[in-house]
Amino acid sequence: MNKLDLNCDMGESYGAWKMGDDLAVLPYVSSANIACGFHGGDPATMRKTVAAAIEHGVAVGAHPSLPDLLGFGRREIRLSPQEAYDCVVVQIGALAAVAASQGGTLHHVKAHGALYNMAARDAALADAICRAMRDVNPELIVYGLAGSELIRAGEALGLRVAQEVFGDRSYESDGSLTPRSLPGAMIEDADASLRQVLSMVQRGRVATRQGTEVEVRADTLCLHGDQPGAAQFAKKIRADLEAKGVVIATV
Amino acid sequence: MNKLDLNCDMGESYGAWKMGDDLAVLPYVSSANIACGFHGGDPATMRKTVAAAIEHGVAVGAHPSLPDLLGFGRREIRLSPQEAYDCVVVQIGALAAVAASQGGTLHHVKAHGALYNMAARDAALADAICRAMRDVNPELIVYGLAGSELIRAGEALGLRVAQEVFGDRSYESDGSLTPRSLPGAMIEDADASLRQVLSMVQRGRVATRQGTEVEVRADTLCLHGDQPGAAQFAKKIRADLEAKGVVIATV
Amino acid sequence: MNKLDLNCDMGESYGAWKMGDDLAVLPYVSSANIACGFHGGDPATMRKTVAAAIEHGVAVGAHPSLPDLLGFGRREIRLSPQEAYDCVVVQIGALAAVAASQGGTLHHVKAHGALYNMAARDAALADAICRAMRDVNPELIVYGLAGSELIRAGEALGLRVAQEVFGDRSYESDGSLTPRSLPGAMIEDADASLRQVLSMVQRGRVATRQGTEVEVRADTLCLHGDQPGAAQFAKKIRADLEAKGVVIATV
Amino acid sequence: MNKLDLNCDMGESYGAWKMGDDLAVLPYVSSANIACGFHGGDPATMRKTVAAAIEHGVAVGAHPSLPDLLGFGRREIRLSPQEAYDCVVVQIGALAAVAASQGGTLHHVKAHGALYNMAARDAALADAICRAMRDVNPELIVYGLAGSELIRAGEALGLRVAQEVFGDRSYESDGSLTPRSLPGAMIEDADASLRQVLSMVQRGRVATRQGTEVEVRADTLCLHGDQPGAAQFAKKIRADLEAKGVVIATV
Repeated sequence: MNKLDLNCDMGESYGAWKMGDDLAVLPYVSSANIACGFHGGDPATMRKTVAAAIEHGVAVGAHPSLPDLLGFGRREIRLSPQEAYDCVVVQIGALAAVAASQGGTLHHVKAHGALYNMAARDAALADAICRAMRDVNPELIVYGLAGSELIRAGEALGLRVAQEVFGDRSYESDGSLTPRSLPGAMIEDADASLRQVLSMVQRGRVATRQGTEVEVRADTLCLHGDQPGAAQFAKKIRADLEAKGVVIATV
Repeated sequence: MNKLDLNCDMGESYGAWKMGDDLAVLPYVSSANIACGFHGGDPATMRKTVAAAIEHGVAVGAHPSLPDLLGFGRREIRLSPQEAYDCVVVQIGALAAVAASQGGTLHHVKAHGALYNMAARDAALADAICRAMRDVNPELIVYGLAGSELIRAGEALGLRVAQEVFGDRSYESDGSLTPRSLPGAMIEDADASLRQVLSMVQRGRVATRQGTEVEVRADTLCLHGDQPGAAQFAKKIRADLEAKGVVIATV
Repeated sequence: MNKLDLNCDMGESYGAWKMGDDLAVLPYVSSANIACGFHGGDPATMRKTVAAAIEHGVAVGAHPSLPDLLGFGRREIRLSPQEAYDCVVVQIGALAAVAASQGGTLHHVKAHGALYNMAARDAALADAICRAMRDVNPELIVYGLAGSELIRAGEALGLRVAQEVFGDRSYESDGSLTPRSLPGAMIEDADASLRQVLSMVQRGRVATRQGTEVEVRADTLCLHGDQPGAAQFAKKIRADLEAKGVVIATV
Repeated sequence: MNKLDLNCDMGESYGAWKMGDDLAVLPYVSSANIACGFHGGDPATMRKTVAAAIEHGVAVGAHPSLPDLLGFGRREIRLSPQEAYDCVVVQIGALAAVAASQGGTLHHVKAHGALYNMAARDAALADAICRAMRDVNPELIVYGLAGSELIRAGEALGLRVAQEVFGDRSYESDGSLTPRSLPGAMIEDADASLRQVLSMVQRGRVATRQGTEVEVRADTLCLHGDQPGAAQFAKKIRADLEAKGVVIATV
């Protein structure tokens, strides 16, 4: 109850276009979710990002997406579980090969954007993603929204799971994240954010927008790498958590 | 000197578009080179083709290409050895994961189209492709044009190689294929084609357009799957070769 | 009430992959909806298809799609009206330039696949598509499902519209098409299909699955070009309609 | 001899990825070359960039590329003149439609990256690009490297041309640009750059790396928008040129 993984999406540049400042964030995280080409992450970016993660001792994860470069994987596409399975298999494979070529191994899989959100609530899609992981390599760890269908699907297939929580989003009394469209959805105060994370890590509970508390399991905390000040934020929250006795390490 | 692999490019459909008649050709070949998404081969096609190859006991190979869906990987793109390395790593990985998910393993790699041709004559590009293979999995076998730079690069890196020959193309006195633009480049007579293949397999020699003979090593014969009558041709040449005592088996 | 346009989707090949037999169908239709690159239709295919349509005196239309080559534009993508507007503008422009380069002009726009279906029921999306048309060229004619939101949006913006009907789909009592998942959705009998079309063209009414009749305006009939026997079917229905006194001509 | 167009590539962002600071550069240029989707420039970026150019009274040009998002259009692809023609037609059309939708018109076409370089020296490719322009709209102005095959092709087809010069590149005694691989290829001193531009505009001559002078016609000057300080540089060179009596206006 006093250990936490810090994960961050990385390698989301594409060709001549740059996104995020991965090298600045890497010293402060314990797991990297690396784009696999479907929403970002061309082959060269995949290699450079994987190599940098290995150099920093950060766990290498695949960050598969819906096939949507133009929409950066953020638009929902109505696809079948079989289509999702196929898309995840090839993306895991691509990143696993890059990891192998750089002397590393693939540790986990965290879905990106719309696929992450859809898999959190759609049991059939969640099952397809987890079967893709199991069929390629049953050692892979499912990173998914705490309490989501994806976590349930991973557990049902006997996979290891890491429940993901957020420090900058408020929670509802049913354990879900407050929709961004509602007031108070985003927690912008750094101290409030730290308190929320500590409560989740050390007490297994989070205060809700409704004023109640709900149980939540916090295995890994999502950090954002593509915002201004991302590295400074990552550095501070890691230091603050460590100051409170939390051990930062991958799952 | 009496054993030959028959290989064929497969899985080159893409989404709603179909190409070739893979299921009809599979019974007659011993190795399948399966497209990995860069010139054809969407994730579902990759899965179906790999599953069919495994079911037929055919060796599963990756068929990586330059990134060019529009040009079907047939147009030369001036890219650096590092770019080629990166493109090959991710394509090998994608197909290896599909193979794993279907209960198989990746056996070999044969470059597609313009990448195949460029790697046959460009030593730096050939080296990049073979390093990509070695760095992902040093057990992978290099399929390449007999006597080409790609074969040399594979041997120099300690990889197993399979030298590929053609039954429907004539040879020059330096051991290269006659350019298609020259008269007599294509051998359209089935008997002449069979004689050429037998000579290469059993005597290690091929008659040239110039009237001489050159040495050639024939580990694997290239069959074409996307032409009318492809399956009938494959069936006949396999039967003819077996009738002459040649054992058809993957390398 | 005795005139009908016959339209067919065309130019949906892509690079090395072929789809449909456009040249065989062209003699029998009066309007061609030509793919613009987002779900099919590479630049060379666009040119060849437009040139063939002009040669046959068939009206040249754009057939814009959601951006989804892999899914052939058949998967719903949740995109904003502004995104739809932008996608339609560039696709109309691409095809209009091809038409100009071949000595023709753009006549109409018919959305493809999932975009067609979404625009039939989503008023905001329908409005975006029609504004894109108006803003590029207000002479363009909206082809859309009879009675749909797209038709309403076109009329509201002062555009000419062509209401599309189907001969191979049954209708519901509210004027919508019977969902394909229901029994009886497809009309496979050629005579029944002809009767339905004649009723729509000559009486402005169609029998429904519920046994009632509803009003429907039939400006244009959708023919399918990518099915076996497509050209034979087009030839027959055109001859049958003409035998019943229906004049086949574009709107 | 005292008038100069300042042109800059723009609209090269793609989806979530940003490139350049177009809005900062727009006040100082007279012509914008706007990406058309093949190397950058998604439909929304095209619209926003065109709208901003129109708002600033800057001439709207198309900036067509080889089809290579991954390589940002910088890699040579061996394609036929017909393929180039087709690619240019659809890109011109896409941007022309965007211009029309925003109340503007297309003024010129400047090829991007590898296509620009290939068209400067390959007469057949240059002819294909210029025929594409003429066949879509014969009023379009060809922007091309001064003295290049593209300029010759445009003139041969009766198109208006704008000869492009560079202030940050040195020239050879045959009038070509010094290859970047040679020392002295880049002119980094602002004063030397200004002197070179003034000499070209006011005297029609440029000093060469060999110490000689050659004739060059300077209709338009290429500014770079994707480098740090691009807007400051554009502002300064415009002010410096105007201070020397040069009128900045599109061709």
